[in-house]
Amino acid sequence: MHPNHFTPVPLDKAYRLLNHGPTVLVSARHGGVDNVMSAAWACALDFAPPKVTVVLDKATRTRELVEASGHFALQLPTVPMAAMTVAIGTDSAKTLPDKLQRHGVELFEAPGHRSTPLVQGCAAWLVCRVIPEPHNQQAYDLFIGEVVAAWADDRVFRNGHWEFDTTPDHLRTLHYVAGGQFYATGQSIKV
Amino acid sequence: MHPNHFTPVPLDKAYRLLNHGPTVLVSARHGGVDNVMSAAWACALDFAPPKVTVVLDKATRTRELVEASGHFALQLPTVPMAAMTVAIGTDSAKTLPDKLQRHGVELFEAPGHRSTPLVQGCAAWLVCRVIPEPHNQQAYDLFIGEVVAAWADDRVFRNGHWEFDTTPDHLRTLHYVAGGQFYATGQSIKV
Repeated sequence: MHPNHFTPVPLDKAYRLLNHGPTVLVSARHGGVDNVMSAAWACALDFAPPKVTVVLDKATRTRELVEASGHFALQLPTVPMAAMTVAIGTDSAKTLPDKLQRHGVELFEAPGHRSTPLVQGCAAWLVCRVIPEPHNQQAYDLFIGEVVAAWADDRVFRNGHWEFDTTPDHLRTLHYVAGGQFYATGQSIKV
Repeated sequence: MHPNHFTPVPLDKAYRLLNHGPTVLVSARHGGVDNVMSAAWACALDFAPPKVTVVLDKATRTRELVEASGHFALQLPTVPMAAMTVAIGTDSAKTLPDKLQRHGVELFEAPGHRSTPLVQGCAAWLVCRVIPEPHNQQAYDLFIGEVVAAWADDRVFRNGHWEFDTTPDHLRTLHYVAGGQFYATGQSIKV
């Protein structure tokens, strides 16, 4: 069951979900196995069709699932998820098979995209199809994806715009630095 | 003459300058021509040696200078530079040759790196050498660079850490969305 306020975002506005540089959670599913890791190194790459880049280390279980399934989702954790974001970026399912349960990660599926698990509590979600680029993946751990569907919590992103300044602070997104330290998305500045 | 508070950042900490996903200014120089454009799509790619990705549209003069010189700098504009950041990301030097002067962009050079101009007023600067990847550059406008030197304003980044919460708000960095709208880097969250 998808969460309340889970609202489709038109693909031509999907880049706006990543444009402010938030830290993301990367999720994937293959052969009945789900996993999620955090990634600060995700970025928009193109407007239409929307594309993204994300760096996935060779040591991660999530990367194996992405390579096997050809799909992944990026989603934007919110302020109350900061500790979870650090935990699932630190622990690996390779050594801690119950990592998701242990850290309270709750998954759901979006209608029409049941092959990619999504994480409850996020501010936005992008389901992506891998555009295979073996050299980038091998040499740089760099994956390119085309966004095939996107949604946002309509309390905080609506009509193609983030509305962080008019919604409760717990819906703000996160920007990771290092050592368990983030910055929340801050004050709106319009020029 | 470099600005006050312009302090070297060790290369193993350089990724932290980009990790929170700020919008950057991309500068380059070739054949006596300088240019600067803004880019929301820049991202860390590796820790050591530090690498970055940045998307540079084929229509830009800055991209021509990057390709010809093999170098570029990424730098992080601060809150008072928001209007300039939009302006130099909108206007092209191809149609507005005095774009930098018109928008008040002041350049300087760092000792030992005089072949790449840097922009006054930023919070951090990274000089990068292009790692040629012709397929990425042609197919995706995606450039990969190795960071060869980095500096930060030591009022806001010191001892390897951002200190936005203990410095004046005008030193906060920017996160662009669309339509002239940014978010400043917000509140620190430590888990």
